[in-house]
Amino acid sequence: MRAVDLIQKKRDGHALSKEEIDWLLEGYVDGSVPDYQMAALAMAIYFKGMDTREISDLTMAMVASGDQVDLSTIPSIKVDKHSTGGVGDKVTLILAPLVASFGVSVAKMSGRGLGHTGGTLDKLESIKGFQVEIPEADFIQQVQEIGVSVIGQSDQLVKADKLLYALRDVTATVDIIPLIASSVMSKKIAAGADAILLDVTVGQGAFMKTIEEARELATTMVNLGKAVGRETVAVVTDMSQPLGRAIGNRLELLEAIEILRGQGRSDITNFVSELGQMLLALAGVEKSLEEVRSHLENGLALAKFEEMVVAQGGDLEDLYRPVQVQEVYEVKAPVSGYITELPALYYGLFAMKLGAGRAVKTDPLDFETGLVFEKKVGDRVEVGQVLARIYANSEIPKVMLEEFLENVKIGKEEVEIQEIIEIVR
Amino acid sequence: MRAVDLIQKKRDGHALSKEEIDWLLEGYVDGSVPDYQMAALAMAIYFKGMDTREISDLTMAMVASGDQVDLSTIPSIKVDKHSTGGVGDKVTLILAPLVASFGVSVAKMSGRGLGHTGGTLDKLESIKGFQVEIPEADFIQQVQEIGVSVIGQSDQLVKADKLLYALRDVTATVDIIPLIASSVMSKKIAAGADAILLDVTVGQGAFMKTIEEARELATTMVNLGKAVGRETVAVVTDMSQPLGRAIGNRLELLEAIEILRGQGRSDITNFVSELGQMLLALAGVEKSLEEVRSHLENGLALAKFEEMVVAQGGDLEDLYRPVQVQEVYEVKAPVSGYITELPALYYGLFAMKLGAGRAVKTDPLDFETGLVFEKKVGDRVEVGQVLARIYANSEIPKVMLEEFLENVKIGKEEVEIQEIIEIVR
Repeated sequence: MRAVDLIQKKRDGHALSKEEIDWLLEGYVDGSVPDYQMAALAMAIYFKGMDTREISDLTMAMVASGDQVDLSTIPSIKVDKHSTGGVGDKVTLILAPLVASFGVSVAKMSGRGLGHTGGTLDKLESIKGFQVEIPEADFIQQVQEIGVSVIGQSDQLVKADKLLYALRDVTATVDIIPLIASSVMSKKIAAGADAILLDVTVGQGAFMKTIEEARELATTMVNLGKAVGRETVAVVTDMSQPLGRAIGNRLELLEAIEILRGQGRSDITNFVSELGQMLLALAGVEKSLEEVRSHLENGLALAKFEEMVVAQGGDLEDLYRPVQVQEVYEVKAPVSGYITELPALYYGLFAMKLGAGRAVKTDPLDFETGLVFEKKVGDRVEVGQVLARIYANSEIPKVMLEEFLENVKIGKEEVEIQEIIEIVR
Repeated sequence: MRAVDLIQKKRDGHALSKEEIDWLLEGYVDGSVPDYQMAALAMAIYFKGMDTREISDLTMAMVASGDQVDLSTIPSIKVDKHSTGGVGDKVTLILAPLVASFGVSVAKMSGRGLGHTGGTLDKLESIKGFQVEIPEADFIQQVQEIGVSVIGQSDQLVKADKLLYALRDVTATVDIIPLIASSVMSKKIAAGADAILLDVTVGQGAFMKTIEEARELATTMVNLGKAVGRETVAVVTDMSQPLGRAIGNRLELLEAIEILRGQGRSDITNFVSELGQMLLALAGVEKSLEEVRSHLENGLALAKFEEMVVAQGGDLEDLYRPVQVQEVYEVKAPVSGYITELPALYYGLFAMKLGAGRAVKTDPLDFETGLVFEKKVGDRVEVGQVLARIYANSEIPKVMLEEFLENVKIGKEEVEIQEIIEIVR
């Protein structure tokens, strides 16, 4: 086989066979198929796509390119959750202990955030002492003992994805549904969970810009999961505005604790509860929404979160410490009305500039900085009321503050928002 | 500027600016834009094309990536000729001395053949002692003195093309008209000639498979040449069967001598004479076809060729030596009729297997081996007559000989052939 012939085959619109896909992926990992051939192939896939069988073969070839986690020593059904990424997404911090508080095991390996804001691992590392690099055996033991652990994904898992993702990032081949689907699902399959809940975000702050694209990605991934015997459900969710109130690592941690205490905004609280209900159902545990929400109110979910923090070396006192920044700016409403727009991408990039996210992989993060919105889309606001607070460790130029305000749209009509747009089973 | 943004711009169907194209090419040559980004860009160009202005900017950025030959010390108009490649193409060997015999200077830099058969340089090197690696100053002096020189292209010319061509070869991005046009024309422009004749071959044995594609490439290159002030004419020519009688380095040299003596087949003799007439016209020398052909018959063209061979160190005695091979196979007509098909690609690959061409760049060539056809498409043949001779230095399996014969199609109806399909000015 020659890689150039396979690139041409795809370029000319033909499907690659399982043997061809396996050969390409093996060659890519062992170095005999160089980056430039994979880049040309990825661009050909951008234009010509892949059919269901090809995507499934690609996904399993990715899984085969690294180790697989064996969770079989954990007796209950193990669930996992993945989000295609958004701004202010602290859902895992709440969902993992919430589900575990019902006795369903959550063994979650998470990636580190590259993009506007930090990832789940960064948010957990904003707790003093918290360890995300844990040997696999200890990870499994922790899930056996307390039912939940969230750690960094091992370098040994899905080696092809690591290479391919870095390559796609610099060759304008990121937004390709077959490649996104196989990247996400290969990691979930290799991580060993029995049941997977996928949160496919849509909107300006997400990879998928339209509901149609998001639905296609969700359907592709659900079919992939089912094809390999994993219970899989996807929700298409709104990412036109940031999720919840906070953007920024520690600020999001604190909002997660607020929600775990039953004191969060009702919209995100309901959203997380609905996802919790779905994850429990995937594990065969049927609960009403009220029952799920009750664990946020009676302290059981928060207690489980504290157990996880302690198990992974985190300092419980530091957990509740407020953020420490040099300056907090208040942004106030210039007029009265209803918030109609709060563009997620803009505020994600704003938080990144404060140090809360990475522009390149090696950028250090400032865990403390970020934004907290007092008002979200659909909320009523009166002139002079605080719309948001900016937590900064550097002086913010006046022009940036003005721009911040210009991006909040305030109108006369109340707008309806819907976190979960649709469910794909 | 970031390469990834430019790849995405092209991928999304937008034109790249001159500044963007310059930046990409400079970066590619200095190594800051890696192969994998150029590969993704090339594949995006495959699908989205380039407009006339982009192709022109790309070509001039390629020219600027290396040295340019200054031929201004040669007083007359300097002409150059390029073929997009074919099987049995020995035209340069005849055309260069033919044109020079009329006092028009031919300063030609040639590439080495990669493909089914050797290139012009390989054919010249089949003459004992012939030097194709000559310093630029000596090359220019030779043209000043005898009016003709054919040498290998300097490594310092169009550095970007060298890199890009090798990359395209392994990423299924060879057959892209904007990239072929800029590759050919950047080399012709950098080589310094005032007037350029392009032979765009079409058919099964050529890059361009249809007349439409060939016409598009021809038009693109003629416009490119004119845009930078070089007189340029292109001919679209048939490459469905091999050109002339011989395929193979020394066999083609001997056929070229036959034609230079006025003893070649009339079809290729006429073809070369027509190209000669056009090249002379480009240099402002108007001659009738008969006048051009007369230099093949009166020995002036051959004398000029001998002058060039001597000037470049070639052994005149060796020039006329027949090929030396272990075995000559005769292929005879199984039926009587008219030859209707003689597929160029098949016989080109056949000659390559005999050692006359390279499968990979580092393959050594056997100058002596190859094929000579006694009959070509349109010719009448009687059962038992010799169709072709195979000059081999290894035993040819019976199945290969059978296949050779199966590929010659003999029919009842005489077919018309036309070497020059159209002229693009």
